[in-house]
Amino acid sequence: MTVTVSTESSVIDQQLAEARAAIAALPTLERVFFTACGGSYAVMMPNEYFVSSRSTSLETAAFNAAEFTARASRRVNSQSVVILCSHSGTTPETVEAARHARAAGALTVAFTHELGSPLAEAAEYVIAYQHGEGKSEAYVAPSLMLRLVAGLLDDHEGSTHGAAVDAAVASLPSVVPAVKAKYADAADAWGFSYRREELIYTMASGSNYGPAYSFAICLLQEMQWVHSAAIHAGEYFHGPFEITDVDVPFIALLGLDETRAIEERAVKFLTAHSERTLVIDAKDFGLDHLDESVRGIAAHLIFGVVLRTFADALADHRGHPLSVRRYMWRMDY
Amino acid sequence: MTVTVSTESSVIDQQLAEARAAIAALPTLERVFFTACGGSYAVMMPNEYFVSSRSTSLETAAFNAAEFTARASRRVNSQSVVILCSHSGTTPETVEAARHARAAGALTVAFTHELGSPLAEAAEYVIAYQHGEGKSEAYVAPSLMLRLVAGLLDDHEGSTHGAAVDAAVASLPSVVPAVKAKYADAADAWGFSYRREELIYTMASGSNYGPAYSFAICLLQEMQWVHSAAIHAGEYFHGPFEITDVDVPFIALLGLDETRAIEERAVKFLTAHSERTLVIDAKDFGLDHLDESVRGIAAHLIFGVVLRTFADALADHRGHPLSVRRYMWRMDY
Repeated sequence: MTVTVSTESSVIDQQLAEARAAIAALPTLERVFFTACGGSYAVMMPNEYFVSSRSTSLETAAFNAAEFTARASRRVNSQSVVILCSHSGTTPETVEAARHARAAGALTVAFTHELGSPLAEAAEYVIAYQHGEGKSEAYVAPSLMLRLVAGLLDDHEGSTHGAAVDAAVASLPSVVPAVKAKYADAADAWGFSYRREELIYTMASGSNYGPAYSFAICLLQEMQWVHSAAIHAGEYFHGPFEITDVDVPFIALLGLDETRAIEERAVKFLTAHSERTLVIDAKDFGLDHLDESVRGIAAHLIFGVVLRTFADALADHRGHPLSVRRYMWRMDY
Repeated sequence: MTVTVSTESSVIDQQLAEARAAIAALPTLERVFFTACGGSYAVMMPNEYFVSSRSTSLETAAFNAAEFTARASRRVNSQSVVILCSHSGTTPETVEAARHARAAGALTVAFTHELGSPLAEAAEYVIAYQHGEGKSEAYVAPSLMLRLVAGLLDDHEGSTHGAAVDAAVASLPSVVPAVKAKYADAADAWGFSYRREELIYTMASGSNYGPAYSFAICLLQEMQWVHSAAIHAGEYFHGPFEITDVDVPFIALLGLDETRAIEERAVKFLTAHSERTLVIDAKDFGLDHLDESVRGIAAHLIFGVVLRTFADALADHRGHPLSVRRYMWRMDY
């Protein structure tokens, strides 16, 4: 993968403002669809939750990009915004989804690290997020996507999410280093203790299902070759809980949104029956400075950072760098 | 669990007709939501696909019942139908979802085996599907739900899915025994060969993701204590495929809907890199007699039957009956 310099924050602010203005200028907006693949798809899940749980007037759904194009829903039209994301901007399914949505008349907004990539070319509006060395946590994809969605809700419905979300995102550059430092020792101890595990489940609900899904399929399955599944905490008691045992490892998230009670119920059972449970509670993230109305939806931004700290520690103790692949980028598929 | 006699088919037809008529009589219908838990939630996924890929005028989404209630979407209102399902009719989250939806003004339709159950009491309309000894495959929950959804699409949009779906469902009592017989030997051989596996992944997309999900969380995790995850075939190349190896077991479904090419691509890679892959192809189900327009959406009805045949064989060779539980029904949680 080519390493490129991240786009300047002032340029990104301008891109975000232009996309938001274009959405606000639509004569009619009825639907917001999110589509991408893998880790980029996971970034969209909290945003789908945000719209679904807050909006009166907007339909929303999130799909894997190949599934989105194959479904060919006739509801993707000129009254729809389709938000896409691909880090390299070269994911064929996501590029095709952008073309499909645009041909259907939808307004397309692409998040990518690579200006000039096929996805950036295919979509009408592009937001070139930061990544890697020198990035600001306020300008990574999850932060920017949440800002865009809060903005479009406000523009369309007269709600007032935007200012609180913007403030939450602006605080990330100071919050994130503190959170990383706070979890450093716990992550190292966990990485050592779990280094021989062949399977680790993750569990969450609501706006934090996305980070749990991302950790399961990207960090564990893809980057560590550790078996995993992201279990929805509300589904746990309807099947998956029967595989709980003293020696079956779980990472369970406790968020701050309307579904926290669902997660709490699952965690209570889990910790009573398993001795290999890591519970990460967003109440420990130090988010009390955030407006209460957005604390729940902002927590997923921190879960991503905290989970990455645990993944780094696991990779270190397994001697299996997160960058190693056996198939991805190494062959055609 | 109490074993009760199934409702007569003529009574069920009447219940289905009443629910359909009530939906058709709504002054405005804009949304169809599906909500349930576990295996009942899995039954809804193909129906969500059906509406999403066919409808012009209807919004649709499927949620775990606890998540549905917690989200408290304001789009659940008098212009919405909410379809629920619980086998015993006692699933607390689903009963609560019915009450929540009804209080919000939505028309509620519950599928359950138990007339007189809390869910049957909570919902306005009830369809009491058959199950167990003497059931007809045309009167089980997946068959009836598909008929209701095809009917409501036709009533609302002037489409013509209903007759073909009704014919497909009516043919099940003759199709299912033939399919079961066809797969009996293969299922037995698979059950023997896979009896020591501690983890088996499933994979599918589109309208067949539901059966893959149900097999992973209900048959494998819940009833066999075998680790599993249902991988979306479109997500496979964006993370999960890195855990593919010669000795990692997969059950991959090839359906007949618009997403078949997604499944074919994943199966091609999987079978090239794993020696423990069971591919079940709906082309082998003998569905050529069905109208081509509904062959894709009807395939999930057969996948459920075929997968159950494989589960029965696995349970037999593992000496672990599908009825055994360690937590469910044995303690409070």
